[in-house]
Amino acid sequence: MAGFYFLILLSACAAAAATGSVFLPGEWYRSLKKPSWTPPKKAFPIVWTALYVISAFAATRIALSANPAPGLALWSLQIALNTLWTPVFFGARRMGMGMIVIAVLWVVLAAIIPVFLQADLLAGLLMIPYLVWISIAAGLNWRIWRDNRDLA
Amino acid sequence: MAGFYFLILLSACAAAAATGSVFLPGEWYRSLKKPSWTPPKKAFPIVWTALYVISAFAATRIALSANPAPGLALWSLQIALNTLWTPVFFGARRMGMGMIVIAVLWVVLAAIIPVFLQADLLAGLLMIPYLVWISIAAGLNWRIWRDNRDLA
Repeated sequence: MAGFYFLILLSACAAAAATGSVFLPGEWYRSLKKPSWTPPKKAFPIVWTALYVISAFAATRIALSANPAPGLALWSLQIALNTLWTPVFFGARRMGMGMIVIAVLWVVLAAIIPVFLQADLLAGLLMIPYLVWISIAAGLNWRIWRDNRDLA
Repeated sequence: MAGFYFLILLSACAAAAATGSVFLPGEWYRSLKKPSWTPPKKAFPIVWTALYVISAFAATRIALSANPAPGLALWSLQIALNTLWTPVFFGARRMGMGMIVIAVLWVVLAAIIPVFLQADLLAGLLMIPYLVWISIAAGLNWRIWRDNRDLA
């Protein structure tokens, strides 16, 4: 069953990742004013690929645990929010709505960690880098939104 | 716990539904050649709202069942694909890629029904209208793609 769960959950991540190939940053994003601590462009696909694989692996461990339902329900919410963010920000270029989506995603990930930890220690620990990255991404969304108000 | 699951799963549906308010059909969609059996425009938000609420309710019953993991894993995949389709079709106007997304969603829903039925009879039956609607939507995506090749 581990292989079945990992395949299904990684496919959900692939659906989320597909938004990144459909809605590319492009000229509009390049022209925006960005903070000095913006991660280098090439870091994004590498970090996201790692986070998707790790979060699918963590959720697989939850699926195989004694109490899978709370963690998997929250995981389904985070993957829907994750799939929504890129089209809202890069597709519709709605930076304010993107901020709301990523803020809710942050809250859901902050709730997932204790729920995962309770069901499976390793699964919970593996979600921490995802929360750290979303904290950076949310800070970036906020700064870009604030510093480019005239374009919003 | 039923209220917790329903709230979380309905929130995932809300993320998927939000794509419909960000990427409206608009002038481009109105100008496309559509088959005679296209459902009336006002049917879409009504049907989608009903299907989202029903599928969140069905998944809540699965979460409360004795074997929730296989059904919830598949449910997370369908909600990610559902969130992806609208931005691909109405946002990026990629009708061919939309066809791929909706075809995969159809297969996932066809797989969900027996898995749900095994865990909870009512939950499985409640997913049938969703599969019927996605069959219609997939047929519509196909016909619109085929009949508007010059615009694709």
